[in-house]
Amino acid sequence: MTSRDQLFNQQASALGYSFDGEIKIGGNYVPLLQDGKHIYISGQIPRVGNDVVVTGAAGSDVTLLDAQKAAKISIMRALALLKNHLGSLDVVKSVLRITVYVQSASTFTQQSEVADGASEVLYAVFGKDGVHTRTSVGVLQLPKKATVEIDMIAAI
Amino acid sequence: MTSRDQLFNQQASALGYSFDGEIKIGGNYVPLLQDGKHIYISGQIPRVGNDVVVTGAAGSDVTLLDAQKAAKISIMRALALLKNHLGSLDVVKSVLRITVYVQSASTFTQQSEVADGASEVLYAVFGKDGVHTRTSVGVLQLPKKATVEIDMIAAI
Amino acid sequence: MTSRDQLFNQQASALGYSFDGEIKIGGNYVPLLQDGKHIYISGQIPRVGNDVVVTGAAGSDVTLLDAQKAAKISIMRALALLKNHLGSLDVVKSVLRITVYVQSASTFTQQSEVADGASEVLYAVFGKDGVHTRTSVGVLQLPKKATVEIDMIAAI
Repeated sequence: MTSRDQLFNQQASALGYSFDGEIKIGGNYVPLLQDGKHIYISGQIPRVGNDVVVTGAAGSDVTLLDAQKAAKISIMRALALLKNHLGSLDVVKSVLRITVYVQSASTFTQQSEVADGASEVLYAVFGKDGVHTRTSVGVLQLPKKATVEIDMIAAI
Repeated sequence: MTSRDQLFNQQASALGYSFDGEIKIGGNYVPLLQDGKHIYISGQIPRVGNDVVVTGAAGSDVTLLDAQKAAKISIMRALALLKNHLGSLDVVKSVLRITVYVQSASTFTQQSEVADGASEVLYAVFGKDGVHTRTSVGVLQLPKKATVEIDMIAAI
Repeated sequence: MTSRDQLFNQQASALGYSFDGEIKIGGNYVPLLQDGKHIYISGQIPRVGNDVVVTGAAGSDVTLLDAQKAAKISIMRALALLKNHLGSLDVVKSVLRITVYVQSASTFTQQSEVADGASEVLYAVFGKDGVHTRTSVGVLQLPKKATVEIDMIAAI
């Protein structure tokens, strides 16, 4: 049987990026905080190493496909944080909530389709335990011009 | 004494819409997820059956009154999901948080007044147990051009 | 040793505002709701008394520095609510999540830097217990034209 951590690595390979190494953030906050059996994860953008690899507004600067890729990378960062913190993704019981912010052109209305990129990754790694609630909205701008930002609440 | 489920039906009648039947969503996510005594509900837009019945930006395409109606329909969908899941709204202990995203014209600043539509429905159905915390923001665009999207965390 | 409540007062003095007195809100919702050991706080804007003291879009109407000030005032309101409810900030165990909505010019991408204003206040008052997860997004508009809105989930 393929472990979730192996499935995570398969997703990373498919995207062509490595999510190893420490995820650095500035400021007086943390990327992940555990409260009993719940884990809160700060908003993740499609950053790999020092680079934000998908920037600009979906529907004008960025295609739906690239915005979905941005959602995949953002959720992979969230999973990388979970994996580093817990030792293994096998400990995760469920993903309670993701909020998917999509930097959007004013006429772009496919925020749900963008968020599908993240949901697909969760399904690929967790299978039916990866079902989650989700909110997708179209925002004017995001930190560092990122196309997508995703935060998460998970349960162990 | 009028049950909450009857009050829910009265609200549905007042709006002129039925919220019976399964609420279908696409993708690898779910509209509702229970975690112990907490229930997370995915972002709901003013969809009835297959139609999003209020679309466009509040303050330009859509009046305040219609945006409030959009908020009422969105929160009714959330309540319909709770009702289907729990069997009855009488089981709900409290509504901890709603986030109300309002598709807004750039000069529209009455997001709180739009959200009042949702808060009024919660009060009509739950009475004083319906008090909740709330965040209202004005976003550039929403899935399917919806005027309002609302997500919820409830406790039983 | 300086208590958190004294540190809160120092922050208020540094900002030049008083956060005493009841925080009034309209509508059928509440500014704060406790659920067991968790406290949900409604979205707070930089309002002092009856006035929203920082309005307009960061990056055009408002400088980064003033937007950071808006974030500081908004989080101080959240802390004032916690303090009023709990009697003292010393009871707070951790701040699980803040979401920082920044009214942004379309080209403004320093939402994280704006949110740093709020994170600095949390650190000043709570020290290392003030670390928190955070999501910062750039929205088109906020209630009453506020530059920043912040909501919170805290644990006691």
